[in-house]
Amino acid sequence: MRLLDISLTVSPQMPTYKGKKEMKPVIEKTRSLEEGANESRFIFPSHTGTHIDAPRHMIDQGKTIDQIPLDRFWGPAVVIEILGRPAIDRDALLPFSSFILKDHYLILKTDNSLTNLSREDFVYLTESGAQFLKEKEIRGLGMDSIGIERNQPDHPSHRTLLASGIVIVEGLYLTHVLPGMYLFFAFPLKIEGGDGSPARALLLTW
Amino acid sequence: MRLLDISLTVSPQMPTYKGKKEMKPVIEKTRSLEEGANESRFIFPSHTGTHIDAPRHMIDQGKTIDQIPLDRFWGPAVVIEILGRPAIDRDALLPFSSFILKDHYLILKTDNSLTNLSREDFVYLTESGAQFLKEKEIRGLGMDSIGIERNQPDHPSHRTLLASGIVIVEGLYLTHVLPGMYLFFAFPLKIEGGDGSPARALLLTW
Repeated sequence: MRLLDISLTVSPQMPTYKGKKEMKPVIEKTRSLEEGANESRFIFPSHTGTHIDAPRHMIDQGKTIDQIPLDRFWGPAVVIEILGRPAIDRDALLPFSSFILKDHYLILKTDNSLTNLSREDFVYLTESGAQFLKEKEIRGLGMDSIGIERNQPDHPSHRTLLASGIVIVEGLYLTHVLPGMYLFFAFPLKIEGGDGSPARALLLTW
Repeated sequence: MRLLDISLTVSPQMPTYKGKKEMKPVIEKTRSLEEGANESRFIFPSHTGTHIDAPRHMIDQGKTIDQIPLDRFWGPAVVIEILGRPAIDRDALLPFSSFILKDHYLILKTDNSLTNLSREDFVYLTESGAQFLKEKEIRGLGMDSIGIERNQPDHPSHRTLLASGIVIVEGLYLTHVLPGMYLFFAFPLKIEGGDGSPARALLLTW
């Protein structure tokens, strides 16, 4: 058995949603070894880096991150690679239909992985793509973009998945990951009332 | 298989090391649904709540949290309960010697679990206790206190374990956990240069 790390390193240099500066984390040293111990403080936006969206992110009265049952955050997963497309719609997903399984995670590797998730015009999931995944009743979607969509008024891709209880994991680092079957884990922090949480995302292979 | 959550809820009310106010997390709302999406920002001390200590916390040039191999953060675990002792020393551990196994996690449940980890004079691991666990070559120690020691000059319990590559997981919530064998997980965030990181800690039972 082998663990693959598919998480972004948390640092002030990390890519953020559309490159926004206010979404960068801040790491401050608060104490040194001379004072007794090295300690620090993180200032961390809830939708930066490798993170999970709670339904509350986009849905009024939706579940917060601490209200989601733990077992939603892991499960069997398939990694599929779709290159050369600016957006992932139903047509892009259809050829992989037999690999997109009920109650499994789908991990989407796109052209975003060629540029370290730094593109502002990143590859995203369209509303028809989200609708297809809802019909497939997947457990969760993980993607190699800081957000799963951009420039779609009212965020229909987020809303379609979150309203169906499908977990959204954003900011996955997949450059070194081959398509195939894995076991996926990404347990968020138990943040009271959280609209999202950073998580360490992993794939187990054997 | 069943997952047990052994993590503290992250909230401004959570217990902190010796009740220190500056160790409380801050959660600020930065955006609302009317503005497009609920978003927030966490200000999070590196040694608050359920968290992992990197060697760098106490050792000059020790490994930082992003330098520790991933497979150190999970493994077979035994939960043992030691009640009625103000500190856990070698003598307190000796009766459990045959359950404290090489390359396993030891999860220590103490009187701290009777008071929700809020005691400033919390039960801690003494230097002789740490020395015993080093000799046992355990993989990691998890404990129901925000720190594993207090009021020991130069932190010998931390230093003994961290210098031996033994992972320290602090702030475990164990009130509902029975002694026995489990699989333990607590993967930290991959924080560049981090002296510690919050983590969602879990036990798997079957």
